[in-house]
Amino acid sequence: MKFIKEVQAHCDLFCGVYDPAQARIEAQAVYNSVHKYNESDDPVFKQRAIAIKEERAQLVKEHLWVLWTDYFKPPHIEKFPELHDLFWRATKAAGETKKSTSIEDSQLLLDLIDEIGQIFAQTKKGYNYQAVVDNLNL
Amino acid sequence: MKFIKEVQAHCDLFCGVYDPAQARIEAQAVYNSVHKYNESDDPVFKQRAIAIKEERAQLVKEHLWVLWTDYFKPPHIEKFPELHDLFWRATKAAGETKKSTSIEDSQLLLDLIDEIGQIFAQTKKGYNYQAVVDNLNL
Amino acid sequence: MKFIKEVQAHCDLFCGVYDPAQARIEAQAVYNSVHKYNESDDPVFKQRAIAIKEERAQLVKEHLWVLWTDYFKPPHIEKFPELHDLFWRATKAAGETKKSTSIEDSQLLLDLIDEIGQIFAQTKKGYNYQAVVDNLNL
Amino acid sequence: MKFIKEVQAHCDLFCGVYDPAQARIEAQAVYNSVHKYNESDDPVFKQRAIAIKEERAQLVKEHLWVLWTDYFKPPHIEKFPELHDLFWRATKAAGETKKSTSIEDSQLLLDLIDEIGQIFAQTKKGYNYQAVVDNLNL
Amino acid sequence: MKFIKEVQAHCDLFCGVYDPAQARIEAQAVYNSVHKYNESDDPVFKQRAIAIKEERAQLVKEHLWVLWTDYFKPPHIEKFPELHDLFWRATKAAGETKKSTSIEDSQLLLDLIDEIGQIFAQTKKGYNYQAVVDNLNL
Amino acid sequence: MKFIKEVQAHCDLFCGVYDPAQARIEAQAVYNSVHKYNESDDPVFKQRAIAIKEERAQLVKEHLWVLWTDYFKPPHIEKFPELHDLFWRATKAAGETKKSTSIEDSQLLLDLIDEIGQIFAQTKKGYNYQAVVDNLNL
Repeated sequence: MKFIKEVQAHCDLFCGVYDPAQARIEAQAVYNSVHKYNESDDPVFKQRAIAIKEERAQLVKEHLWVLWTDYFKPPHIEKFPELHDLFWRATKAAGETKKSTSIEDSQLLLDLIDEIGQIFAQTKKGYNYQAVVDNLNL
Repeated sequence: MKFIKEVQAHCDLFCGVYDPAQARIEAQAVYNSVHKYNESDDPVFKQRAIAIKEERAQLVKEHLWVLWTDYFKPPHIEKFPELHDLFWRATKAAGETKKSTSIEDSQLLLDLIDEIGQIFAQTKKGYNYQAVVDNLNL
Repeated sequence: MKFIKEVQAHCDLFCGVYDPAQARIEAQAVYNSVHKYNESDDPVFKQRAIAIKEERAQLVKEHLWVLWTDYFKPPHIEKFPELHDLFWRATKAAGETKKSTSIEDSQLLLDLIDEIGQIFAQTKKGYNYQAVVDNLNL
Repeated sequence: MKFIKEVQAHCDLFCGVYDPAQARIEAQAVYNSVHKYNESDDPVFKQRAIAIKEERAQLVKEHLWVLWTDYFKPPHIEKFPELHDLFWRATKAAGETKKSTSIEDSQLLLDLIDEIGQIFAQTKKGYNYQAVVDNLNL
Repeated sequence: MKFIKEVQAHCDLFCGVYDPAQARIEAQAVYNSVHKYNESDDPVFKQRAIAIKEERAQLVKEHLWVLWTDYFKPPHIEKFPELHDLFWRATKAAGETKKSTSIEDSQLLLDLIDEIGQIFAQTKKGYNYQAVVDNLNL
Repeated sequence: MKFIKEVQAHCDLFCGVYDPAQARIEAQAVYNSVHKYNESDDPVFKQRAIAIKEERAQLVKEHLWVLWTDYFKPPHIEKFPELHDLFWRATKAAGETKKSTSIEDSQLLLDLIDEIGQIFAQTKKGYNYQAVVDNLNL
């Protein structure tokens, strides 16, 4: 049964539940904020879009950092040596979205999280990252 | 295309992205914390399990409150008049899990969030709550 | 004696002390921020007014959610079946004040909190909501 | 009219609304937590009482610090030269309640906040601190 | 040996480690934000500079309040009776930097923290505030 | 002059001021908490020591993550390819101190931060990490 298996997998970590979907959800909010910022002429709306983007981009960084430090273990890093640099670039990309109102910067962030999600899926039997993203209300 | 449609749906809300999966993820962490609390004999571990449970249960409440206030709109309430009371009981159930170390209380919380998820799915064409939960790394 | 009675009343809840005055205080800060926003020509001041309003409106939502979920119990809801919808509209109104710089939107929020306060007073013998509001430094 | 007057008074400060009642509410929660801690035999309940007390005592400190720094102005300090030391002792007393489970330490905190409240009332025409405390749901 | 001595000194306080350098670091970030705000023509950058300044100035206030209430003890206040007022002016100055984009206001904040640092150094044998500031990456 | 140079160095980053001393200060608080936990027999004190350690270890993680993502740039990583793994082990070590009451685990965290500090110093002309640590009130 699915749940029992997962509990075992988390026993040595004990930090709740890890899923790259959490970063993905917030990164989508960043993307949407940029989109709406660019479409609006209302200065109050635009200010709020920037502020919400800042907050959401920060949440992306936090979700990614937690995933990197708390979920992944030495055997994962051995098998996927690119992980460290991928997380570094992804969190840097999240930082860039704070400064930027370009949709390309937000798209890059989504793409890097998707790369992480695909690797994550290879470490979790039965987890299909694409199915999660397709099913989420993004 | 999926994404474009969602952006339209959120235009009047502008608060990022809503998904009952966020509450579900944290509620699973509550459940896992209770499970581990009951299995451990180590007092420091047990203290941390209680503290983490408290924190996660609070996140459940916050995700549910946001969903209730920010996502649902008057036509939803007309169509699903039980929603107010369901959210009230679910957030109360989350509060109960702070006080309790019984796995039944955590299970009740999961069940109530699943009820909310099923209603949410009826308001979102193409969203399959069960598929999200089955695909998430819970 | 007043205090002893209250401790008893809270024993089954154990979450500290509930009072609609907490939401009322923050809603007044929202109102004042809107007022000052509209009176100012200084762009830095205006930006800060929007940011502070956002923060305070969020605190209103949080105080109201806590009051709704943690203070009120099933017999209250039976007696005041309008409570669920009233809290929903009040928290939605708080959300609206984040987006708006209209004093009417802030006034609506104050009015809805006052409605809640009046019902709260009917559940607490010896509590006079109007006296609290009149005495507070608002 | 009451409100207009207050807006004027706050114009140079612009930080929302100040009232010692905010610290008083949280200090009462500290007091109640100590009371319940001492009455309970349930170790989980007792742990939560300590944790909630810690959190509430921190809120007391924050409310007092804000009041001291943001509300009071040089003429107040000239007229009430004891204010600095009173706030220092009150915030220290709040810190003590974090470490202590003695009801006397919580009572001392309430007393010091009441002293502050009485001075505050002397700086605000028409504000009656005792009436606020008597009317609050403490 | 340095460390052992400090542990003893903190035993009665138990709140970790105090150092005015923490406030100094954040105040430098305030100063830098003002500097960059004034040099930029980009409205998004300028908005972020204001928001970051607000956040950092708040951290300055919090570090200073903690130092004042938690580190200093009655014998310190007897020996340095100006401390209360100095902290009050420093936290007020931090509040001013939230409202201001003048580099002089940020410099005043740095100067007041340096005054506090010099007094702090007189209470800590072997602590050289100027050496800390000179060595920090400010 | 020192300050001017630093402002230039930060222009492209704009996130305030980076210094490994911030993580070092919090890690010392973790170390001290463990020390005091082990020396005490008072259950309330011991609970607080665990809770404060948890909070401080979290701050260590956050300071390190920020330093890793926001301060270091591609040329640094090229020159110090061990940096990614060093930060990963250091943040993992901070996570371990949450679970542990062993002084060795806290010491390991201090050692890893010192390794980071030494590399940081090689990227900052004129910055002497050891001098900072020796001068701080740790």
